[in-house]
Formats: sequence, structure tokens, C-alpha cells
Amino acid sequence: METPQVKFYYKNTTAEVLGKEHGITKQQFNELAKKTEPLIKQLNNDRKAKKVRYRDLPYQTDTVKSVKKIAAGVKGCENFVVLGIGGSAMGNIALQTALNPYMYNLDEKQRKGPRLFVLDNVDPQQMRSFLDWIDGRLDRTIFNVISKSGRTAETAAQFLTICSLLEKRLGKNSLKKHIIATTDAKEGTLRKITDNFGFRNLPVPDGVGGRFSVLSAVGLLSAAVCGIDIDNLLAGAERMDKKVSQKDFYRNPAAVNAAINYHFYKRGKRISVMMPYSYALKDFADWYRQLWAESLGKVKNLSGKEVFVGPTPIKALGATDQHSQVQLYRQGPNDKLFTFLTVQDFEKDVEIGKAPAVAPELNFLSRQKFSRLLNNEKTATEYALLASKRPNLTIAFDKISPYTIGQFIYLFETTTSIAGLLFGIDAYDQPAVELGKDATLALMSSSEYADLAKKIKPVMKIDKNFII
Amino acid sequence: METPQVKFYYKNTTAEVLGKEHGITKQQFNELAKKTEPLIKQLNNDRKAKKVRYRDLPYQTDTVKSVKKIAAGVKGCENFVVLGIGGSAMGNIALQTALNPYMYNLDEKQRKGPRLFVLDNVDPQQMRSFLDWIDGRLDRTIFNVISKSGRTAETAAQFLTICSLLEKRLGKNSLKKHIIATTDAKEGTLRKITDNFGFRNLPVPDGVGGRFSVLSAVGLLSAAVCGIDIDNLLAGAERMDKKVSQKDFYRNPAAVNAAINYHFYKRGKRISVMMPYSYALKDFADWYRQLWAESLGKVKNLSGKEVFVGPTPIKALGATDQHSQVQLYRQGPNDKLFTFLTVQDFEKDVEIGKAPAVAPELNFLSRQKFSRLLNNEKTATEYALLASKRPNLTIAFDKISPYTIGQFIYLFETTTSIAGLLFGIDAYDQPAVELGKDATLALMSSSEYADLAKKIKPVMKIDKNFII
Repeated sequence: METPQVKFYYKNTTAEVLGKEHGITKQQFNELAKKTEPLIKQLNNDRKAKKVRYRDLPYQTDTVKSVKKIAAGVKGCENFVVLGIGGSAMGNIALQTALNPYMYNLDEKQRKGPRLFVLDNVDPQQMRSFLDWIDGRLDRTIFNVISKSGRTAETAAQFLTICSLLEKRLGKNSLKKHIIATTDAKEGTLRKITDNFGFRNLPVPDGVGGRFSVLSAVGLLSAAVCGIDIDNLLAGAERMDKKVSQKDFYRNPAAVNAAINYHFYKRGKRISVMMPYSYALKDFADWYRQLWAESLGKVKNLSGKEVFVGPTPIKALGATDQHSQVQLYRQGPNDKLFTFLTVQDFEKDVEIGKAPAVAPELNFLSRQKFSRLLNNEKTATEYALLASKRPNLTIAFDKISPYTIGQFIYLFETTTSIAGLLFGIDAYDQPAVELGKDATLALMSSSEYADLAKKIKPVMKIDKNFII
Repeated sequence: METPQVKFYYKNTTAEVLGKEHGITKQQFNELAKKTEPLIKQLNNDRKAKKVRYRDLPYQTDTVKSVKKIAAGVKGCENFVVLGIGGSAMGNIALQTALNPYMYNLDEKQRKGPRLFVLDNVDPQQMRSFLDWIDGRLDRTIFNVISKSGRTAETAAQFLTICSLLEKRLGKNSLKKHIIATTDAKEGTLRKITDNFGFRNLPVPDGVGGRFSVLSAVGLLSAAVCGIDIDNLLAGAERMDKKVSQKDFYRNPAAVNAAINYHFYKRGKRISVMMPYSYALKDFADWYRQLWAESLGKVKNLSGKEVFVGPTPIKALGATDQHSQVQLYRQGPNDKLFTFLTVQDFEKDVEIGKAPAVAPELNFLSRQKFSRLLNNEKTATEYALLASKRPNLTIAFDKISPYTIGQFIYLFETTTSIAGLLFGIDAYDQPAVELGKDATLALMSSSEYADLAKKIKPVMKIDKNFII
């Protein structure tokens, strides 16, 4: 029996469909193949040399064992709260939206695990509302704080606040029972705290950046706790690992995907739109947004030359955004490459009711399936974009399951690696984020960053000449 | 006593801050003023000639009365479900996120009205999950179907499905009790159905496009039902109406905002990022996305010349997206204009806990307020963007209230109108959306659109040569 697949379809980027002016010709594809094949080899070699550590996440049997053990230990809790931000939150959110029902948190009949909350910000109103609700439920709640270092200001702020609340309500000894830490195995602030308090804990693996960490303990624990089959998730990633390691360009979906994105960027399409026709996949478009932006948005190439490179990723949602963005997508500047995500078999479906006699113009909907309507809308949008010569790709899910989601994650992570090599940049660092972090520290503390604080002062002052 | 204001701050777009190469000089501002002032006048005249009907929404006393009456009539229902999409959903969602607590649907102590759901898609899995939950609760649920015509496929599909379910569970006569229609006052499919079944109903005003309709009955009913003070919302819009009608460019925030956006677009900044530092405002960034994209993304100017114009709006969220997008924003191409939304007084706040003795490096957070951290993060990001010469605007809310939200809505609607005039395009139509709608009809029905269906066929067929 065939297991469900994720397939990559790229005909709507070709000159065959779009014409030479807008599409990629056979010759251009062959040039891309020639340029990309050595990079596939390089990535395979780097991977063997343990320089691309996320590539080994499908095979981390020890971590999976630890995750399952901890997940089993919190069985029966009613609320599971992730404290993290960026790469320590987005993957968790995306897995949950993809693999659990829409009404999961509201409907206990529809869930196999606890309610899940991922607090990925430090908004005072949002946090106040959440704390007011959770306050009387702390004894049935587990918190999973996720940070490699423990010094990320937002996560640390959430964590200290929760510790203080637990201590106040349930006593100092309650922390050990209610907090699980996912952090560096050896060093750092959160490691120190974890060892000091004796928290149960899981490792954030070395050499895996936040945006590549969803298949590590970072993403796996909340998934396992909420009833997601993490073995199948990793098996899906393993399945895709085979595909994307292939040396032949035309058989390697990550290579072709990266090359097409690179090609269109060079031709002036600076914007990359990911548009799932599936509510379940909407937060993976958000996850992709981080993966793509932080990895490829770089000022310097590997030779140190200033390049200011990087496509801007955008998330959209079908069919909803047809009523919001498609006007621009079709008639605005032809500066975008589109990636649709589609689902062949939704498994659960709804039948549309019968049109009333007074409105026969709605008969075309009577007794039709929602799935048919949604997938036809995708085809209709695809057709309309092609009519305006806008290139588009489709990632086709046979169905949505841990196995296909694992494939999808691994496909886009390796696509990112190959795209990084094509752009000639370091896809794994994020140097531009530091200044903002330092500036926050300067503004929060009085002493350590005094010089920087002085530099920021003029920005803080509102100049009355420029306010209306 | 001063009422809370929304202010527009633009110093960080000036040459004074960014230098001549990246900022707007005094002379350029004066040129923009000269170009824009006649357009302010034109808009004011068009408004008087009843050509810009959304401008009169703050003054619709009759509609407000009807909305309040209907809202009072459904008092005590437990669930209020909006069936709509695009302009008939986004404003409703944005108002709810802005003006009601984060945990509103989950915590009955935190809400004054029923739970609110806005179903703005036709995803089969999402809909199945929702229907499974609502099924046993139909007797305590009110549905508000919103569509000017009633022929929008997604809304019609939802509506027919709900009608069928109500009929099955509660009998044919239940429809009248459980459905409220917001639709054209005189004609169209939903008007026919409404009159036939005798639904309570509210008007979608003539000449107000979906994306400009949030302050009409479209957005007001769900807001009023959920306890939002719609009088103050409209009073805020009225307050901003005074500001944005001013002839003097430098006193008119909509004019300066539109001119700055126009100026940077012409200089190659094709992307417009709206980044609220407030969870409450995050869905207004989404609402803005529709307003901006559908209004300004146009193939032709008013003289009929092909221009393919339009900035691409993006939503981001502070501080969360610092850990996702800021790397690209600072070091990627300098092709973006940023608009921050900030809140001075969050009213509700949270105190961060004390750092444990083992981690003195977190002392800078101990006993600080979340509001202080979040607002310092905004300043830090602003500073970091300026260090990379990226222009940015700030919309500063004294606090978030119906009165300031009304100001914000009206400010951006009029900004859009003036930007449309600057670009020389029709900001109120959306011709490019039709082909996709027709294509959906062609794919759903067999007869009426047979020719179009034939044309779409090649798109539907998966070509085995281009799939991996």
C-alpha cells in the first residue's frame, strides 16, 4: 500500500506555460541544473561532515525516547503552555494547527491531550487575560519553557512571571512539578536554573538554529503531549531525506524548488507568497516565513561582499485571501512567485445544504462537498494567475498527516539550504538581530549598556515637528 | 479632560534622520504637499458629491439604532457566528481582537457577550470541527450571514449548510429565529431569501465596497453583540474625519501618510510592512492588508494606461516577528517602508517575576512591567532599522479603545483614498477578482460556463514531466 506523499509541481513556472518572457525555458532549466548539482553534492558532503546538523533530526532515537517518557509523565494535565518565541514557538504552533482539530482547545471531545497555549510574545494585555484565566487552573497545568540560552528577553520574562505565580499559589516546591525546560544540554542561563531547581528537561541540540529546530525536542514535546504521532512525523522527514539527497537535479524537489526561487528572484521577483488552500496548513506558511527570511535575508555573501539579498516571504490563505490579495496578485506588479499548498484528500468533509427554491442561482452549490469547492477555488486562482502571467508552484499533499507534514518540513528546510548556497550566503546565521537585542537590554538596564542607551535617546524623543 | 488620540509620527522617514540618499528632504516634502493638496480638495468635493460613501458612515444614526435593537434582541445567546469572507469578515475579526480580551471565547468571566466565531473560509476540516462542536448548541446560537449580493460562493456555501443543519435539528421555523442577514436593502440573492424567510436584517450600504465597510452594519452588529461601544467607535471616526478633511497638507495625517507611502513606492520600496507592537492590533494589520492591496493594486490608471502598480502590504507582529523577520528587514534589500503601531497606555499590565539568585544576568527583567519591555522592544527595533537606513512610520495610540480604533480605521481608509489619487488609479474597484470567481463557477457547474471550463482543463491536468 502506498503511503501518503508530498509532491512538488512546477509546470506553471515554465516557458511552456507562461511564454519565454515570463517563464523558465528548457535551456534555463538546464543551466540551473548545472549550477545546482554541485551544490547538492556540497550539501550532502557538509551533512556528512556534521556541519548541517538539522539533517540528522529524523534519526534522533534517544531524544524521541526522552520526549515520549516526559509526555507520558504529564498525561492527564488539562493545560500545556509553551513559553518560547520565534523558532521556539512557531513550529509548535504550526504542528498543532496542522494535526489537531480547529476546535481543539474549546472542545474536549475533539482532543486527546490537554489544551495547548503557545505564548510567543510579551504583550501586557494578552498576558493579563491569559494569567487571569489560568490562575485558578495552575494545579492542572504544565509549562514548557523553551530557550537554548535562557537569555531571550521575551521567554525569560514569561518564565520568571510564571515561576512567581506558581510559587505564590502552589508553593516553591511546585516549580519542579509544573515546569519542563527545553534548553542547552550543558550550559547557559536556563541550564543553570534547570539544574538548580531540578526541572525535567530536554535538549536543544547543538548546531541547529531555532528556525530549523521543529523536529528536535523543541517541537516534539508539545506535539507528543497533544496526541500527535511523532514517530510518523520523523518517518516522513526521513522519507523526504532520501528524495532531497539525490544528486540528479530533476529528481530532487528541494533542488528544483530552490533553483526556481533563485531564478525568479534574480529576474526581479522579490516576493515569495506561500498560499495554503487549507486552514490546517496556514501556520506552516508562517513557519516558512521565518525559515526563509532569517536564512536568506543577508547583507553579505560568503566572500564578504555587500549584496543586500533575500526574497521577502509572505503568507496568504486560500480561499480567504482571494477576497483580499488576489486583485494585487493579478494586476499589481509582476514581482511575486507563488507557492500553493493543496490537499487532495481532506478525510473530513462537509456537504453544502440545498439552495432554497427562491434562489436557483445557488443550485451549483447544492449538495456539493466543501472539499470540492475549496480545491476548485485553488484551480480557479491558479488559472487566473496564469492568465496574468504570474508563475506559481504547487506543493500537493495526498492528505494531511504527521507523515506528510514531516516530509513538508524537511523539504523546505533543505530547499532553504540549497537556496542559501545558490545565493552564496550563510543560511544559518542571523547577525542583524543582535543590535535590536542589545538595544532592548540598553533600554531595560541602567548600567551595562550605557553608551548604547545614549545613542538610542534621540530615537525615543518625539519631535513635535513631525507628529500629527 | 483630553480624550485618547491616535497620532501619526513620520520623522523617521526624513532626510534629517536617514540622510538624503534614504530619506525625504524638505524640498521633496514641499513637492509632495503641492501635489497632494489639490487631491485633498478633490476628495473633499467627491465626498460632498456622495461619490465616497464610506466617508459618511460615522453619521449613520438610523443604522446604529437598528444595530442596537437587533443586538438587544439576541442578548443571552451563547454563540454568535458570522458567515462572511473578505470585507464581510476581516473588520469583524479585527474589532473583536482589538477590543475584547485575548481569552474571550474561552473564559466566560472575561466576556460580556456570547462567544464569537467568524467563519471566513470553506475548509472542510475546519468546518467539520466547528459543526461537530456547535451541533449540540444550536438553540443558543445566532448566525449573522453577511453578503451584499448573496452570491459569494464561500458565504453562500456556509449559509446553505447552516440552514440545512438548523432545519434538521430545530425545524424549518427555526431559521427565522437563528439567522440575521446583513445584505443589500433592495435586491440580490440574499435579499430575496431574507424577505422570503422573514429574517431580521440590516443593510449593506450602497457605494461602500467590502473593504471600506467595517463601520457599517457589516462590522457593527457583531461588535455591539460582543459588548463593544459602537457609539464611541463612530465618534472616533468622526473625530478623525475632522483631521483628515483639513486642506493644509502638513496638518492632515492621511495626506502625509499617503504621500510618504507614494514617495517611497516610486523610489523602489514596493513593500509596505505594518507591524503592531500589540496583540490587540494584530488583526487590524490584516484588515489593512486587504484595504491596501485591493485598493491600490491596479493594472490600469484612470487614463486607461497599463501601469501594473501597487505596494504589497505585509503584516508583522512585534515583538514576535523580531525573531523571524527583522534579520531580513535590516539586512535584506532596502525595499520596504515600515509602519509601527504602538500603544502608550496598555491599561492592563503584568509584572515580571524576580530572577532567581542563580541567574543574576536576568536581573534587568526583575519586577519590570511587560508594557515597558514591549515598548522598549519597539524602540530597539526602530533604532536598529534606522541604523540600516530603513524608513519607518509610527501610529501611536494613547490607548486602545473604541474611540481610538475608530480614529485608526478612518485614518487608513482616507489614506487609501488619497494614495489612490496620487497613484492615479481607481481605488474602489477590484476587476481582477472576477476571473477567479467565474472560473470557480465554471468548475462547479456543468452548463453555464462550459467554454471557460474547457479553457481551464489544461491547468487541472497534472503533467507527469513536472512533478517530483
